[in-house]
Amino acid sequence: MKPRIHVITLAVDDLQRALAFYRDGLGFDSTGVVGSEFIDDRTGAEGAIAIFNLADGLILNIYPRSELAKDANVPFGQPKTGEFSIGHAATNRAEVDAILTLAEAAGATLLDKPHDRPWGIYSGYFQDPDGHLWEIMYNPALDVEA
Amino acid sequence: MKPRIHVITLAVDDLQRALAFYRDGLGFDSTGVVGSEFIDDRTGAEGAIAIFNLADGLILNIYPRSELAKDANVPFGQPKTGEFSIGHAATNRAEVDAILTLAEAAGATLLDKPHDRPWGIYSGYFQDPDGHLWEIMYNPALDVEA
Repeated sequence: MKPRIHVITLAVDDLQRALAFYRDGLGFDSTGVVGSEFIDDRTGAEGAIAIFNLADGLILNIYPRSELAKDANVPFGQPKTGEFSIGHAATNRAEVDAILTLAEAAGATLLDKPHDRPWGIYSGYFQDPDGHLWEIMYNPALDVEA
Repeated sequence: MKPRIHVITLAVDDLQRALAFYRDGLGFDSTGVVGSEFIDDRTGAEGAIAIFNLADGLILNIYPRSELAKDANVPFGQPKTGEFSIGHAATNRAEVDAILTLAEAAGATLLDKPHDRPWGIYSGYFQDPDGHLWEIMYNPALDVEA
């Protein structure tokens, strides 16, 4: 198995709310909700999804929590934070602060003030409207394009 | 905010078990558990983590669930599946089947037989030892390097 990931799909409670957060709030490009015409006869999963094309070919999807449960054949359950986090590297400390401010204005919850951590990074976390964790970090050891 | 993700961190119950699954089972390269010397005085989060360098500069981390909760300042809770999925694109249908077989041999749980889905993809899901979802897919519309 090649060590690569092409897609990250986030389970959300409200597709339009999550779309507004990522597209209008954070500024990620998306053509909006697509696939509403699809339904999987086998699993019952409905097709409506929104897709964001990120850097380096990575795709970020938002997809209803109920439908991901059907699609993956796992029990549907209430939202729960802390199962994973997404890391976004900024080019300096000021950009970390600016992105956290931007995310909060877009409806995110800031979890703490950004601060230096012993791994040599400066970072802060926010939760998106569905509770998913993003860590915005400045890591001098990472080569990040400005 | 630039539309990019540099890091995905998976919360795990047992760092060594997860390391064995991803490194020895799936074959992802890692130097093993690092950072055990660190502790964040502010949050109490311990530093031990294992890092996998994936294609296109993406970093996959595994990190104890308890410590991610401290680091992000969210309540610690029991594992819950279905909050997100990771998509891995194969180059053909047979490779989807082969990767699912490999994952099961490594200790993953297969959730269904892979099948065609109305989005035009052929895929199947597995759960890693901590319940995290991976969808192994063949999508003819995606340009995936063999």
